[in-house]
Amino acid sequence: MTVELICVGTELLMGNIVNTNAAFMAERCAVLGLDCFYQTVVGDNEERLSETIKQAVGRSDIVILSGGLGPTEDDLTKETAAKVMGKDLVMDEKAWKHITSYFEKRGLELTENNRKQALVPAGSMVLYNKNGTAPGIIMEDEKCRIILLPGPPIELKYLWQEKVEEYLKSLSGDVLVSEMVKICGSGESKVETVLKDLIDAQSNPTIATYAKTGEVDVRVTAKGNDEKECKKLLKPVVKEIKKRFGSKIFTTDENVTLEMAVMQILNENKMTLTTAESITGGMIASRLINVPGASDVIKVGFVTYSNKAKRKYLGVKRSTLDKFGAVSEQCAKEMAKGGAAAAKSDVCVAITGIAGPGGETADKEIGLTYIAVSVAGKIKVKEYRFEGSREKIRTTATTSALTLLRHCLLENLTEKTFGE
Amino acid sequence: MTVELICVGTELLMGNIVNTNAAFMAERCAVLGLDCFYQTVVGDNEERLSETIKQAVGRSDIVILSGGLGPTEDDLTKETAAKVMGKDLVMDEKAWKHITSYFEKRGLELTENNRKQALVPAGSMVLYNKNGTAPGIIMEDEKCRIILLPGPPIELKYLWQEKVEEYLKSLSGDVLVSEMVKICGSGESKVETVLKDLIDAQSNPTIATYAKTGEVDVRVTAKGNDEKECKKLLKPVVKEIKKRFGSKIFTTDENVTLEMAVMQILNENKMTLTTAESITGGMIASRLINVPGASDVIKVGFVTYSNKAKRKYLGVKRSTLDKFGAVSEQCAKEMAKGGAAAAKSDVCVAITGIAGPGGETADKEIGLTYIAVSVAGKIKVKEYRFEGSREKIRTTATTSALTLLRHCLLENLTEKTFGE
Repeated sequence: MTVELICVGTELLMGNIVNTNAAFMAERCAVLGLDCFYQTVVGDNEERLSETIKQAVGRSDIVILSGGLGPTEDDLTKETAAKVMGKDLVMDEKAWKHITSYFEKRGLELTENNRKQALVPAGSMVLYNKNGTAPGIIMEDEKCRIILLPGPPIELKYLWQEKVEEYLKSLSGDVLVSEMVKICGSGESKVETVLKDLIDAQSNPTIATYAKTGEVDVRVTAKGNDEKECKKLLKPVVKEIKKRFGSKIFTTDENVTLEMAVMQILNENKMTLTTAESITGGMIASRLINVPGASDVIKVGFVTYSNKAKRKYLGVKRSTLDKFGAVSEQCAKEMAKGGAAAAKSDVCVAITGIAGPGGETADKEIGLTYIAVSVAGKIKVKEYRFEGSREKIRTTATTSALTLLRHCLLENLTEKTFGE
Repeated sequence: MTVELICVGTELLMGNIVNTNAAFMAERCAVLGLDCFYQTVVGDNEERLSETIKQAVGRSDIVILSGGLGPTEDDLTKETAAKVMGKDLVMDEKAWKHITSYFEKRGLELTENNRKQALVPAGSMVLYNKNGTAPGIIMEDEKCRIILLPGPPIELKYLWQEKVEEYLKSLSGDVLVSEMVKICGSGESKVETVLKDLIDAQSNPTIATYAKTGEVDVRVTAKGNDEKECKKLLKPVVKEIKKRFGSKIFTTDENVTLEMAVMQILNENKMTLTTAESITGGMIASRLINVPGASDVIKVGFVTYSNKAKRKYLGVKRSTLDKFGAVSEQCAKEMAKGGAAAAKSDVCVAITGIAGPGGETADKEIGLTYIAVSVAGKIKVKEYRFEGSREKIRTTATTSALTLLRHCLLENLTEKTFGE
């Protein structure tokens, strides 16, 4: 079966935003074994949008549109797609109820144009949207299937995971099973080199690598008649990848994030954590706290961006700051030690670096970062040199801190096991 | 003049990479006043690529293709585009020399298929590529212009900045100037309703709204013969929008973010800030610290996710937690008061809420959040009810906190001005 993606929005055509929705949907379609030959971006213009939909319907089995479902007059996707399929728009009372309660809860004033979002093509499936006001839509006729999804990624992903994925699975004949091996602490080209022979020889299962910031995900996908057959095909390949990357693999569960893997280790070992952040300014704590149940583990997070705060809250010595500077191995070490002591936690992760622009010195360039982890009084420090914009440096630094934290926790647990 | 982008590559169709090239080129085209109505992604398949190029040539003045210029047999962009334009490929000696020296310098072995990269369509302009082996190409005939660029972003950007930008400028007659009015504290449909008459009447300048999480951006774009004419057209429209939204507009500078606007107020008034975060777990501090120079303003950030931490670091009373709970107006107030006192800062923003999943009680549902801001001892608290996933709730809560913080700062400054 073939699928085609149409992303609607002037902000894409003007380059205001990067089309992450297309990448997300394309990846999921590939996993489901759907062939995607075209992706198109088109603006909020009825004529061009209509022509684009007609062309897609003519050459693909499934057409997925995202964007243009908002309440404004600019938003034409639903109206245009319904016209192409020859369907009228009718009021969906459940969608309207959802919209009114969405506004009420936020204390926002409902405006007349919000009613537009509760109109749906007659006879279509309505995908109610917990994360926003625009429902998703699935329309079918004998020639084609059209799926409409809202543009905001958080809404699109929610509807995809809750409704669209299941629907697409029900259409596809082949069974596809994939496993995601997530690796931290190795770059993409390193991962590809280590796996080169497997990638060159691939047929079924296939192997694809996805570079994330500070993380590489390897997807292994098998095609077969049933799940059992697929799993049998997957097993030896996944085993070989695991052998090659060992403890750098933090999960083989698609839904597990690096912060979830870290929190699980802390939870299982009843360890408490403190964060002491300078360059990342709260990003490490924020990612860890995105894992539900964090309050049992995280005693406190300190954002100590200034030298004064490093001294006051973490007990970093003035002499250390004077002699080595705030971005130094010594300072990172004292931050980790002081953070754990101040909060009486088992573990502390501390980070200090130069995110730029500005702040570099003759011997310290932008991107230089020190991460220290204290586990039960034992401290490890590592030096990093990150590259890119301020935001890129801070994001990469955050993932690197979680990676080092995980590494130190595993090391400590192994030692404990051997020591006992 | 119209331009159309075609990005060639299976890795885009499979979702292995995000199409940042399209966003880069689209933004540059918009700045140059070129209308871009379509972007397409297509794979390395001669038939589909050929059809896509023919369609683009038929409806746009300039067609820009990226990707598929490599040395392998898969790479078909140049061959296919030349065929569509009816041009033969001829050896370009300068390109070949460039390729051989590129390999020599890196100590790499040249293979026979690299000669393919030195073939160019007869009569075309060749854009020599410092960052790689594939040259860019510009082909012209009476009907259309086709530009071919390599796929790796570092090569594409180099050739764009060095050659393509200049070429496109020489073609375009119109000048386009736009201004971005950024509004916080109003939803997209509210903004649309307030601007309805202006949007309905728009022709030149045009008005477009962009909904971000907790923020709405309004882009006003004027087309004219020169920058002066554009600015004259923009002025009355921007003035009218400013009048309607008043202090909810935090900037009219494209590059200024909400956190930058907040930091500017703090900086200009030499005020210091403390953050005291529960539900957002460091996200407020992290966004503010993404603004360079934050160390003069932010005294410390507390991530107090647990009740113990709220008591220990912010001095929240045990009786308050027992009687009203951690997610209460009273607790938020004490967090803001205690945070400012602990760090001796002028301002403190505090936040407590239920991000879910789980954590709700009979009278407190997921999403319920209290934000308190203390400015020079005066505290304001506001109740919010956010919806969506844990991540969505936390992101919206962060933007709402920055919005309330900004509001309280402005209120305080106005009072001070009137009081003096």
